Amino acid sequence: MLSFTGSRLDRADHVRADPERLAGYMNWKARLLALDGLMPAMDDEGGLAWGTLADASEDAELVFLGLDDGKACFAAVPAKGDASPRMANPQLWSLMATLRPDDLALYGGARSIVDWHARHRFCAQCGGDTRIAKGGWQRDCTACGASHFPRTDPVTIMLVEHEGRLMLGRGLGWPEGSFSALAGFVEPGESIEEGVAREVLEESGVKVRDVTYVASQPWPFPSQLMIGCHSFTDDDSLTIDETEMAEINWYTLDEVKASLAGNGPFRAPPPHAIAHHLMHWWIHK
Amino acid sequence: MLSFTGSRLDRADHVRADPERLAGYMNWKARLLALDGLMPAMDDEGGLAWGTLADASEDAELVFLGLDDGKACFAAVPAKGDASPRMANPQLWSLMATLRPDDLALYGGARSIVDWHARHRFCAQCGGDTRIAKGGWQRDCTACGASHFPRTDPVTIMLVEHEGRLMLGRGLGWPEGSFSALAGFVEPGESIEEGVAREVLEESGVKVRDVTYVASQPWPFPSQLMIGCHSFTDDDSLTIDETEMAEINWYTLDEVKASLAGNGPFRAPPPHAIAHHLMHWWIHK
Repeated sequence: MLSFTGSRLDRADHVRADPERLAGYMNWKARLLALDGLMPAMDDEGGLAWGTLADASEDAELVFLGLDDGKACFAAVPAKGDASPRMANPQLWSLMATLRPDDLALYGGARSIVDWHARHRFCAQCGGDTRIAKGGWQRDCTACGASHFPRTDPVTIMLVEHEGRLMLGRGLGWPEGSFSALAGFVEPGESIEEGVAREVLEESGVKVRDVTYVASQPWPFPSQLMIGCHSFTDDDSLTIDETEMAEINWYTLDEVKASLAGNGPFRAPPPHAIAHHLMHWWIHK
Repeated sequence: MLSFTGSRLDRADHVRADPERLAGYMNWKARLLALDGLMPAMDDEGGLAWGTLADASEDAELVFLGLDDGKACFAAVPAKGDASPRMANPQLWSLMATLRPDDLALYGGARSIVDWHARHRFCAQCGGDTRIAKGGWQRDCTACGASHFPRTDPVTIMLVEHEGRLMLGRGLGWPEGSFSALAGFVEPGESIEEGVAREVLEESGVKVRDVTYVASQPWPFPSQLMIGCHSFTDDDSLTIDETEMAEINWYTLDEVKASLAGNGPFRAPPPHAIAHHLMHWWIHK
C-alpha cells in the first residue's frame, strides 16, 4: 500500500453539509488532532496525539475530518503565520517511517486541508475575508459570496523505458547521486497522458509513447495527487533542460534493483515516495 | 481520441519563464485568440477566429498559450464581470460537435486558464492585488509576494459493474431519462482509487473493489481533470444519496449498447463527455 493512503476515517460527507448534525458532533466526545503548526504531536506509543475541542483556541476554525469508529475527528486551522513547515523536512520523513500507515494517511489528509485554509483566508475573486463553511470543506467570501473549495493538484510522475533501461533524473539542488522519476504538474487543457508526454519532452527532450497509468498517491506538501505512469520511448538521446535538471541517466534493470537495495549506482527515492513504488513495480513487471 | 485532448500547441515552457524571449514573441506576428467573454469567436470556415495583439485592450492581461507552428498564440483575460458562461451551455455543446478536435482542445485549455486569471485577481493569502507572471502561468501578489498557480481539479468518474450490469445515475435536476457514470472531486488525502470508492459509497451505498484506470480528459468548465475508472462490486443493493442523485439504476450490456445507439432505456451522455467514452470502452472490453 502506498504511503498516505489507507486512512481509517469515514469522511462522512453527509455530516459536513448538515449544520445541525455537524453541531451535534462538536461535543466533549469529539477528538481534536494535536498539531504544532503543521507538525503532528505524538502520543506515548508513537501514534498521533489527540485532544478535545477544548484544546483549540476560542477563535480557531475547525475542520471536520470525519468519523473514526463513530467518533468525530477535527483539526484546527493553524493561527496566522503558524502553518509550517511547508515542505517535507527530515523530521517528517522519519515520521513517515514510524507512524502507522493509517495514522500517516489521516495526518496527511488533515495537514493538506488545514494548510489550505491557512493559505486561503481571503477571496481570490474580490479580496474579501472568507470564512470556513461545510465543516471545513469550503470557504465562503463574506463580501461577494463566492465559494472556494480545497485544492488538490494533479502531478504526473513517470517511468520512461528504452530497451530495458529506465530514465531517471536528478533535479537541480538535489544531493549528488540521488535519482528519481521525472514529474510535473498537469496543466489546464491536458489529459494525464498529454501531461506525461509534455513533461518528459520538456525536461529530457525525449518523445514517449504508450503511456499507461500505474498507481496514485496523495502527497500532502501541500496537497498533490501524484499520478504514477509508465511509458516507452524509441529514442534515448537526451536534451536536458538545465533550468530544472542537473542530470538525467538511463539505468538497467540490474542497476535499478541494486540501487533500490541500497548498493547500486544511485540513491533511490525513499519507500514513502511513489517513485520508489514505481521502480519496484517496474523491476517486477 | 477524447474531446479537449490533442491540442496542436507546443506549450513552450522555456518561453514562459524567460521574460526577454517572451517579449520577443509579443509582436505583430503573434496571434490573439478571439473570445467574447469565455465564448470563442468563429472564422468563416467554422474554425477558431484569431486576431493580433492589437485587438486586446491596452490594460488586458495576456496569457501565452504556446507556439503553433512557430507562431506565438495568446489569449486575453476577460475584463471584470465578463468571464461567462461558467458552465457548458447548449451553444458550447454544439461547438464541441463542430469544432475541429485540435481547435476544441486549444480553446478548452485557453478558456480554463483565462477564466482562472479572471477569478484570481486577488491573493488568497493576504487579500492583496495579484498580477500576471510567467506568461500567464502564474500570478504574483503585489503585497505579500506569494505566487499562485493555475488550478486543475482532479475528478473521478467511474463505471461500477455487477454481474455484467453497469451502475448509472441521474443527478438531481438532470432531465428525465438522462443517465451517466457517477463522479466526484478527488479530495486532499485520497488516492484516485480511494476517491472512486468513497464517491460510489456516498452516492449509491455500494462498496467497490478492483478499481482500474481507463482514460482521462481535461474538462474546461472551469478546469477539471476527468479521471475515468472502472470498478466491480459484489453487492448491487442501492442506498441512494437523495441530496445528490435523483435515480440510480443497473443496466445490462444490451441496454447500454442500445442507449448509446439512441434507442435504449436511457439517454446516454453526449460523445464529448468521458462518460460516453467509458461506456463504449465497457461494451467493447
